Amino acid sequence: MQEKQLLLIPGPTPVPQSILLAGARPMVNHRGPEFKAALDECTQGLKRVFQTSHEVFILTASGTGGLEAAVVNVLSPGDLVLSVSIGVFGDRFANIASIYGAKVEKLDFEMGKAADARKIKARLDADGEKGIKAVLVTHNETSTGVTNDLAAIARAVQGHGALLVVDAISSLLAMDCQMDAWGVDVLVAGAQKGFMIPPGLCFIAISDRASAAMEQARMPRFYFDLKQARRYLQEGQTPWTPAVPQVFQLQEALKLLEQEGLQSCVARHARLAAAAREGAKALGLQLLADESVASNAVTAVRRPEGIEVAALRRLLLQKYGVVLAGGQGALRNDIFRIGHLGLVSETDMLACLAALGMALKELGWQCDPGTGVAAAQKVFGG
Amino acid sequence: MQEKQLLLIPGPTPVPQSILLAGARPMVNHRGPEFKAALDECTQGLKRVFQTSHEVFILTASGTGGLEAAVVNVLSPGDLVLSVSIGVFGDRFANIASIYGAKVEKLDFEMGKAADARKIKARLDADGEKGIKAVLVTHNETSTGVTNDLAAIARAVQGHGALLVVDAISSLLAMDCQMDAWGVDVLVAGAQKGFMIPPGLCFIAISDRASAAMEQARMPRFYFDLKQARRYLQEGQTPWTPAVPQVFQLQEALKLLEQEGLQSCVARHARLAAAAREGAKALGLQLLADESVASNAVTAVRRPEGIEVAALRRLLLQKYGVVLAGGQGALRNDIFRIGHLGLVSETDMLACLAALGMALKELGWQCDPGTGVAAAQKVFGG
Repeated sequence: MQEKQLLLIPGPTPVPQSILLAGARPMVNHRGPEFKAALDECTQGLKRVFQTSHEVFILTASGTGGLEAAVVNVLSPGDLVLSVSIGVFGDRFANIASIYGAKVEKLDFEMGKAADARKIKARLDADGEKGIKAVLVTHNETSTGVTNDLAAIARAVQGHGALLVVDAISSLLAMDCQMDAWGVDVLVAGAQKGFMIPPGLCFIAISDRASAAMEQARMPRFYFDLKQARRYLQEGQTPWTPAVPQVFQLQEALKLLEQEGLQSCVARHARLAAAAREGAKALGLQLLADESVASNAVTAVRRPEGIEVAALRRLLLQKYGVVLAGGQGALRNDIFRIGHLGLVSETDMLACLAALGMALKELGWQCDPGTGVAAAQKVFGG
Repeated sequence: MQEKQLLLIPGPTPVPQSILLAGARPMVNHRGPEFKAALDECTQGLKRVFQTSHEVFILTASGTGGLEAAVVNVLSPGDLVLSVSIGVFGDRFANIASIYGAKVEKLDFEMGKAADARKIKARLDADGEKGIKAVLVTHNETSTGVTNDLAAIARAVQGHGALLVVDAISSLLAMDCQMDAWGVDVLVAGAQKGFMIPPGLCFIAISDRASAAMEQARMPRFYFDLKQARRYLQEGQTPWTPAVPQVFQLQEALKLLEQEGLQSCVARHARLAAAAREGAKALGLQLLADESVASNAVTAVRRPEGIEVAALRRLLLQKYGVVLAGGQGALRNDIFRIGHLGLVSETDMLACLAALGMALKELGWQCDPGTGVAAAQKVFGG
C-alpha cells in the first residue's frame, strides 16, 4: 500500500484536497482577467497573513529564491551585514549575502539554542558608525526546530537603523509573526509550509524603509527584481510567467485559512508541537531544542543511542508509511525531525507517535511503544 | 459560459487532463524515493527531447530564470558577449547579461526578420583576439513569431571558440532543436510551452565546454547555481525544494511525448502554424514574419487597419472564449499573436479562425468570415 503516506516533514506539507484540485483547473492566460483576479486576491490575503499593510510580492521560486530576493533587492556589494545564525538556514542566508558581495559578519549561536537578542543589541550598540546595513535573521530554524524570539530581536535592532531582514519561511502561520507591529523590513515566506500548498512559490513583503533601500541597492538582480514585480503587479501580473496552479492554490488556501483564523491556526500548530514533544519524551527520547524555544512547526529529536537515524526513517517509511525528516548539515545523523506544519491533524500526530513507538521497539529501543501516544492524548485533552 | 476557453497564446499552453491530474497527486517528500524516481526519469526524458547526452537540470523558476541561470553559470563580469536579438526575448537575454556585468555587444535584426548567420560569422571572424566569450541567441522569438536558423548560427559560431548559449524556451518540441549535433553549449527550455505542463519549471542543459566554463565563471549565483544542482541530482534531489507537482506533470508529459514521437510532435506544430498563416492571410490579414522564417509555435499577425488589437482580443475573449495574445514591447499595439503550442488540435485551430473571422467582421473588417477556416481546412487536407 505504497500510496498511503503520512507526510510529517517540515515542508512540503500535506495538501488539502480542495487545494490539490484548485491546481488542476484548466490553464488560463497569465496576463488575462482570471489570473489578475486571483493574483490581486492572493496579494491582499497575504498581507493579512503577514500582518502588514506594506507591499507583498509573489515570486515563482522556492523559499531559497525568496531569501536571495530579500538580499539582492536591498543591499549593495560591500555592505556590512550582521547575519544571525542558529542553524543550516541561517548559514544559508549569510552565504547568499556573501556570494553577492556583502561583507558578512556572522553571529552564530549553538545548534538547538535560540539567538540571544541581547548579544545582537550589544553588537549593534558597538556599531557607533552605523556601518551595519542589515541584520539577517531566521524566525524559525527548520534544521534544529528552534524559534527565535523575533519580537525581541526586532526591538534589539530598532534604534540602530539597520534593516531587519527575516526568513519566515517555516514560521508564518505556525507561529505569530507581526511584520508591521514588530518592525520587520523584509519578510520572506514559502508556499509549501503553513500555507499547505505545493512548493513553487515564495512570498516577500517589504517595508517603506526596505522600499527606499531598494532604490540604492546595487547587487545584480533580474529574475528576482522586485521593482519589476511591483511594476507588473500594478497590472495584476507578474513580470515572468508565474506558477499559475500554485497561485490558484494559494487563493484556495487563503480561503481555508480565513475560515480557521490566524490565531486558531497558530494555536493548532502549538498544540501539535506540544504533543510531538511530550510523545517523544514519553518514549524516552531527547529533544534537541530547549523547550522554551521549541518550534511550533517542527520538532527535532536526538538520535536514540544505538539506532541509526536512516534505519529508523526507512522502517517508518516502509512499514508504517510515516515520512519523517532526517537531520541537515552537521546534524545529519544526530537527529530526526517530525514536521507538524500545514494539514496535520491531531489524529495524524497520534498515528505518528504510535508508529514511532513500534518502530523504535523493533529496532531494539527499550520503551513501552504506547507511551508516546498516551502522552500526546493528554496534550490533546484525552 | 466563462469556464470554456480556447487558450491559444504562446504559453502557458492548454494542459492535457492526465497532466493536470498528475499535478494533483498527494504531496511527497522531495528528498524521498518517490520523488527521486520521478526526477531521474524526467532528467533522462529531457535528454531525449534536448537531443543531448549532456547534463540537464530542472530548476523551479519560469523560463526567464533559466536564461539567468544560463548567463550567470558560464560568464564572469567583464566578459564580452555577442547578443543576437530579433525581439523582446533577445533583448531580455542581453539585458540579463548586462545586469550581471558582462560587456554586451548587441547584434540586432529588424523585428519580424530572422538573424543573419553570415553577419554573426563576420563579427566573430573580426574577433581575431577571441575576446567574445559567448554568443547569446534566441531560437524562437516569441514576440515576433520568428524562428532563427539555429543550425546555421551554430555553424557560424563554430571555430571561433565562443560558447553558444541558446534560449529554446518556446522552440523545443515545436521545432527541431539538436543540441549535440549542432553544437549548442547551453540550452534553456520552459515547462509551459511545448511540454504542455503548467509554468513553474525551466530546464537547462550544458555541454562539456559549458561545464568547463562553469569552473571559471565568477558572476554571483546562488538559487540558480548549477554546481549545486549537479551535486544534489547525484542523490536524485534538487538543492532547494522543487515545484513537486510540475515534476510529476513533466513525467506524464514525457510519456505522452514519447508516444507521439519527437518528429511527429514537430510536424504537428508545423501543420498548425501553416494553417494559422493561411487562415490569417485568407481573412485579408498580413503576417509580421517572412514566411520562410515563420515560427511553428506562434504566428504574429499585423493589426488590421482601423481595428484596435485590444478591442479584437477583448471581443474574442468575451464573446467566443478564444484567448489570443497581444503584442509585446514596441509591437504592443501593432500585432496580435496566435499561439499554437502544446495541446492544440487541428479542430482548435479551425475554431480559432472561425471565431476570428466573425470577430473581425463584427469590428468592421471587410472579409468573408469563413475564408480563414476554408484555407486552414486545405492545409489539413480537407
